[in-house]
Amino acid sequence: MTDSFLHLKDIFNRTKEAIVDFMGILEPAIKNAKDEHERLYFHHIYEEEEHRSDRLQELLPKLDTFIEYPTNQHMGNPEFIHVLQDISLEKFGLHNFLEHLDLALFQFKDTEHINRLQQLRDMTFEDYQETKRILQELNEQFDGAASKGGSVPMDEKEDVKEALKIEMYTDGAASANHQSSIHAQTHFIKKGLTVGSLKK
Amino acid sequence: MTDSFLHLKDIFNRTKEAIVDFMGILEPAIKNAKDEHERLYFHHIYEEEEHRSDRLQELLPKLDTFIEYPTNQHMGNPEFIHVLQDISLEKFGLHNFLEHLDLALFQFKDTEHINRLQQLRDMTFEDYQETKRILQELNEQFDGAASKGGSVPMDEKEDVKEALKIEMYTDGAASANHQSSIHAQTHFIKKGLTVGSLKK
Repeated sequence: MTDSFLHLKDIFNRTKEAIVDFMGILEPAIKNAKDEHERLYFHHIYEEEEHRSDRLQELLPKLDTFIEYPTNQHMGNPEFIHVLQDISLEKFGLHNFLEHLDLALFQFKDTEHINRLQQLRDMTFEDYQETKRILQELNEQFDGAASKGGSVPMDEKEDVKEALKIEMYTDGAASANHQSSIHAQTHFIKKGLTVGSLKK
Repeated sequence: MTDSFLHLKDIFNRTKEAIVDFMGILEPAIKNAKDEHERLYFHHIYEEEEHRSDRLQELLPKLDTFIEYPTNQHMGNPEFIHVLQDISLEKFGLHNFLEHLDLALFQFKDTEHINRLQQLRDMTFEDYQETKRILQELNEQFDGAASKGGSVPMDEKEDVKEALKIEMYTDGAASANHQSSIHAQTHFIKKGLTVGSLKK
């Protein structure tokens, strides 16, 4: 259990640093946006990640407390249940970051940022898979307490229409064969599709 | 207090219905996207709102419990503190929805959805302002317990560079003069800027 929390602490610290990098790439895009739509778009993504960083900032010291006092880790402690649920929300946060990075891989395709973005993407993909594994273990250990509404991305839900999912994020792609999922994502990124206007 | 919770219940039920409407507009945009970038973009916004709907689905029965048993509403009850913090996160959720709707007002500018989007936008703007007012009261009543990391959008933070904010979302615009903020948003929407590619 404490090992799980130590591992999650690493992941959350790492993604928090990644947010700083990502925000650094987005900042000039906001400032130099060519119109109000583009400015709002980059501002919006930046703000969502800034928000995630605030949440992590609040969660990390709580993880530390439970690492330091492992006897507080039990189902009778409401604070512990709440931390498990917060971790569960940050699982969704990692999935969401993955999508922000994939969108950025399109938007910054021909810029100097592409290699760094790809590194952040690959790291986040691994960290998301690992967080899912840890949460599954925590749920088995604590009767499903580490689950909260909104912690499962719709890509991984069975009752969501397939046409609305993105295949590379579905559980099948991620768990069945890690290599093929890496292949799928590389294929997706390398397709080199024309990025047109998002206006309908 | 119970009045505040009843009011919040109305707002959260209303925005939950608005999410369904919004997802209905996005669904064909995902299915008929002209390339993988556009598909990922609409999928991403859809998924974030679907996630928010799941969170609200979990929060609403908790509000009901505290409305039914008002004596449980006290600082010694950890569940009550958690609900206050969950409400605080949903305040950010409303701000985020506002930005999703503003982005959609650009993207669906010349479509049959524009009037409905504008209605949803206006409603969400009002509901966000009202939620902020209610949370301020709850924080005054319960020693700031209704605040959580990540509940304040960076548009309203003092330590964020002005160049990264969107003026119509800043506190000054929203609180100083309601009419002028409505005017600002109408001006923003009516500007009719050319929506180009988001590629850098």
